Amino acid sequence: MSHETAVSEGDLTRTGMALKHDREWDYELDRIVTAVAERDASTVGLQFPEGLKRRGPAVVDDLRDRLPADVTAMLSGQPCYGACDLDTYLMRRTDVFVHFGHSPMKESEKIIYVPLFSNVAVEPILTDALDELADPGDDPDVGLVTTAQHMNRFEAMHAWLEARGFEVHTRRGDDRLTHEGQVLGCNYAAADIDAEQVLYVGGGKFHPLGLAMEHPDKRVVIADPVNNAVSVADAEQFLRQRYATVHKAMSAEQWGVIFCTKIGQGRWEQAEAIVAENDDAYLITMDEVTPDRLRNFDMDAFVNTGCPRITTDDGPQFHKPMLTPGEYEIAVGNEPLEDLSFDTFHGTW
Amino acid sequence: MSHETAVSEGDLTRTGMALKHDREWDYELDRIVTAVAERDASTVGLQFPEGLKRRGPAVVDDLRDRLPADVTAMLSGQPCYGACDLDTYLMRRTDVFVHFGHSPMKESEKIIYVPLFSNVAVEPILTDALDELADPGDDPDVGLVTTAQHMNRFEAMHAWLEARGFEVHTRRGDDRLTHEGQVLGCNYAAADIDAEQVLYVGGGKFHPLGLAMEHPDKRVVIADPVNNAVSVADAEQFLRQRYATVHKAMSAEQWGVIFCTKIGQGRWEQAEAIVAENDDAYLITMDEVTPDRLRNFDMDAFVNTGCPRITTDDGPQFHKPMLTPGEYEIAVGNEPLEDLSFDTFHGTW
Repeated sequence: MSHETAVSEGDLTRTGMALKHDREWDYELDRIVTAVAERDASTVGLQFPEGLKRRGPAVVDDLRDRLPADVTAMLSGQPCYGACDLDTYLMRRTDVFVHFGHSPMKESEKIIYVPLFSNVAVEPILTDALDELADPGDDPDVGLVTTAQHMNRFEAMHAWLEARGFEVHTRRGDDRLTHEGQVLGCNYAAADIDAEQVLYVGGGKFHPLGLAMEHPDKRVVIADPVNNAVSVADAEQFLRQRYATVHKAMSAEQWGVIFCTKIGQGRWEQAEAIVAENDDAYLITMDEVTPDRLRNFDMDAFVNTGCPRITTDDGPQFHKPMLTPGEYEIAVGNEPLEDLSFDTFHGTW
Repeated sequence: MSHETAVSEGDLTRTGMALKHDREWDYELDRIVTAVAERDASTVGLQFPEGLKRRGPAVVDDLRDRLPADVTAMLSGQPCYGACDLDTYLMRRTDVFVHFGHSPMKESEKIIYVPLFSNVAVEPILTDALDELADPGDDPDVGLVTTAQHMNRFEAMHAWLEARGFEVHTRRGDDRLTHEGQVLGCNYAAADIDAEQVLYVGGGKFHPLGLAMEHPDKRVVIADPVNNAVSVADAEQFLRQRYATVHKAMSAEQWGVIFCTKIGQGRWEQAEAIVAENDDAYLITMDEVTPDRLRNFDMDAFVNTGCPRITTDDGPQFHKPMLTPGEYEIAVGNEPLEDLSFDTFHGTW
């Protein structure tokens, strides 16, 4: 599967959720046990991100010790790379449903969200990052953003930077985001701040690349506390890959227009608009967008109205070029080439 | 994906649904157009089996020519290898939903089932099959079974055999099956007839192997009209593989018990019973059962209560042994080794 053969740099397996640090997570079993008692539940569904699925059985063991014997715990086997990979089947069919490791895209009484915070200290990497940030004496303004699993250290990062003379700018992105300063692979609104430099604290390359493309006027400094590395986001190479893909798709005759059926990824108007104006475009609906599922469709190119990480990060694994909706408009000549930008999602479900 | 990297011998890609014969199919567009008019539909969902997905765009084109301009057609991008791979998401969200190429497991007003029949003549392969069948003078009794795509020739096969002195035994399997004489990869009840030999007319190896295992007392003659080959089903090698897999799983400590959420594949009582009596067994729920989805679970072996074709045909592609529920009972010592049998499904949704 795409996620297996070439692990995304933006997903959890590279961002400290992997086992290399052998850290302990707080699964908040008390909250789950309480919810089971309150709802007199007979079934509990548990969904873990890919990088933590192997912890599932031990969590089930712990719950079995603490729950009545007639309560059945179930692990979701659906792929899970983000908050929008909600296993709605399991959610609807269990009395208590717990989603681990992602912050809610939208609060729901049906779902217990258990964040799993990294316990990696951030101060050492912040110290290293000083080399790439402007001297606060010259330019004190810096934006600060991070991902869900480092959110527990956000205040500490903020204070650390202020103590060194920075004026730290933060904001809560939009409805799609739970926390002040949080970014998603598909949403960088938290970096819409009044500073020429943004410090991204977190793992992976995908988030900072999206950040740099979404905010081309800002310098994006990456402080990766998990891999202990500081760098500056360079959207150049990424942009070149995207241009090459757009160029390849320009000769496409038949287009497959993917409408992703996952919660939080459905952009129906966009998908329908493309098909309405292009006689050679065909709507394809699916939940998981994988190379194997598209291989049997005889299309020359695809437009993915779902998760932009799939389109750009997994893109090379598909047998035909796959574009974001914005890139499609360029490929068919509706928009100029220089309008190429990162595909983002706003709002919730 | 499993289905891509090692094409199942039991699936459509090897049974004449592939393009090699370049045959024309009757998509019954009139029925679809009529349904759209009757329901004043604004959306039409179309689901094709994997081997025919590439025909989807042409069918959409034909429908666009004949439907009002404001009707939107959508192709299902979900994997589809059988009647139980129903795209319930698309079904629920379209006014007219058409499932091509499989006979209904259960009639539903929501779904238009369009069978796609093979146009390969069966008489030549029946003639060849005479070499493997008993002389009707010695033993005239023969069972006759086939698959959905050759069902249009069933009467002709029947008459052809009778004209040659055979007494042809047929029956409708059970609720799971639409037609007299029809078998599924998970149901061979149509061969519960009073004859020592059964003639299977159809492609692939999986169906006749299941047939031979389910009816070990009968000789199963395979007449494959698509690949133009006659053989006798030999369950020996298949059984040896299954024994080897069971043996490997005997040392398993942690078991993943898969509950498949697809329509027609859910055997909840079976899955729950295993977990209830084995403290080292963990329920995992999922729709598509693929090697990649299980790789992140730290289990020593899996029991699949869903589709037996996945377990046996795709089995070697999984990183850990995967057993049918019956095989599991053998592996944990609840049943003797000689009780190993083919896993079948009865009933409908």
